[in-house]
Amino acid sequence: MRLRLIPRDTTYFDLLAALAQHNVSGASLLAELLGAPRGERAEVAARMSEAEHLADDATHSIMRRLNQTFVTPFDRDDIYALASALDDCMDDMEEAADLIVLYKVDELPLRVSEQVQVLQRCAELTAEAMPRLHTLNALEDYWVEINRLENQGDKVHRKLIAQLFDEVTDPILLMKLKEIVDVLENATDGFEHVANIVESIALKES
Amino acid sequence: MRLRLIPRDTTYFDLLAALAQHNVSGASLLAELLGAPRGERAEVAARMSEAEHLADDATHSIMRRLNQTFVTPFDRDDIYALASALDDCMDDMEEAADLIVLYKVDELPLRVSEQVQVLQRCAELTAEAMPRLHTLNALEDYWVEINRLENQGDKVHRKLIAQLFDEVTDPILLMKLKEIVDVLENATDGFEHVANIVESIALKES
Amino acid sequence: MRLRLIPRDTTYFDLLAALAQHNVSGASLLAELLGAPRGERAEVAARMSEAEHLADDATHSIMRRLNQTFVTPFDRDDIYALASALDDCMDDMEEAADLIVLYKVDELPLRVSEQVQVLQRCAELTAEAMPRLHTLNALEDYWVEINRLENQGDKVHRKLIAQLFDEVTDPILLMKLKEIVDVLENATDGFEHVANIVESIALKES
Repeated sequence: MRLRLIPRDTTYFDLLAALAQHNVSGASLLAELLGAPRGERAEVAARMSEAEHLADDATHSIMRRLNQTFVTPFDRDDIYALASALDDCMDDMEEAADLIVLYKVDELPLRVSEQVQVLQRCAELTAEAMPRLHTLNALEDYWVEINRLENQGDKVHRKLIAQLFDEVTDPILLMKLKEIVDVLENATDGFEHVANIVESIALKES
Repeated sequence: MRLRLIPRDTTYFDLLAALAQHNVSGASLLAELLGAPRGERAEVAARMSEAEHLADDATHSIMRRLNQTFVTPFDRDDIYALASALDDCMDDMEEAADLIVLYKVDELPLRVSEQVQVLQRCAELTAEAMPRLHTLNALEDYWVEINRLENQGDKVHRKLIAQLFDEVTDPILLMKLKEIVDVLENATDGFEHVANIVESIALKES
Repeated sequence: MRLRLIPRDTTYFDLLAALAQHNVSGASLLAELLGAPRGERAEVAARMSEAEHLADDATHSIMRRLNQTFVTPFDRDDIYALASALDDCMDDMEEAADLIVLYKVDELPLRVSEQVQVLQRCAELTAEAMPRLHTLNALEDYWVEINRLENQGDKVHRKLIAQLFDEVTDPILLMKLKEIVDVLENATDGFEHVANIVESIALKES
């Protein structure tokens, strides 16, 4: 452990935690969207869009702060990469919600809710891990568990794809459903990408 | 602002500006392709392919120089990342042009030209920003505007996708058109990626 | 060339070479899968899945070692990025094998075997290059050749896509075949990404 002569600016940890919290809201809104009657989906998607704007604002606050402060707790570009990666998760979740409305899909396969459960768990674990960046303690459990969840999400995704190709005979409906489940899989990959950046920061700084 | 004891090698700024200029040509060729009668598309796509080769050569000149010079104005890997990201934009634009010819698509939706206008603006702003890397002045306006354009491009893209799914009933034609507009959207994302790298460099070096 | 006061920990080169060797096995298994009668494909895909697990284990050994050792031959995050990128190639190859079985595709276009030959060559060159990271000698030939192969793979891929759209009239079969050849193309891009990281390391460290 290196000695730190200058006290860390802990505001970054709060800002990253706040950004990660928006992803928790985003994943919850996705779950709400799946359970909503078709007529109410647009309203849930609109709240998702607001959540995405809030996450954008949170990301830009971090970038502005990086621009203005001299001492940062980690390398500037690591904080930058971490904030961008957290924001990417929200972008994918918002895209999935938007596609569900845009494609006017009547019914989604049941297994989509398994994908969203994985996303909810990933979002929660990530939000819980952000404050631990302060001490870099107890982060390994987080990234190991995210990697496990991403593997699980990958298996659910492949079963879903096989099921879609077996059951859906309308090629245009198949294209729509496939893209929705693919974007949800991208969101899971996004959380793994966040975990990889955290692991990489922990390796450098510890 | 750190003191610089060694004068900067400004050649890199010229080389990056030249590479970015190829993207301006590429975006113009895309616009020309959209306006060309179907029989002349292959000829425009061939010129696009030449432009892509020139961009490749420009990228490799930068890599070779990085390999041979000791003092670089920024971290070597940042210059590397920036040159690669600029080259990726061209690759996507060339791919879109190639797909339009390869898929023998009769008519493209009108909104595709809005996507290409966004790309042209992104390419111009990027080329204008490269020389400003020298002093790192007045770059924020550039990356803020690119982010705004990427958002605008994203909205155009989603409307296009909704329109395609509403209007195109032939699933194979739908697949072709969707891929073309998706690759154009990737190109816009590519310019945002360039802007993110510039922002990240500015944060580190300022 | 910088003087090195501390002897390099050469274990990393062995570990990276071992990881790269799993990609050679993966590419061979893909070739075997293409040649296998349909009834035996699942068994080959199962061996591919095992190879993918071994590559995962090899990747995690590298990450654990990075976590435990103080002196590394390169920047920790470069080793991290390189191991991740090698593992990504395997993931794509395993995904392609899995899709071939999952989609129950009767016949693959002949040109798919050209894609797999490119992957085999990429995997072999990459495995041969890893031990040369030790001295950073003779690596340029490797990354130049990988870039050439990726270009060649890209051309094969585009011809394949054009052929699929010309010949396959069942849109659902077309979607399946297109995704398989796209994932194989991603794997080729993955090897180029590895080569780009090696080039970037060589630029920084030389």
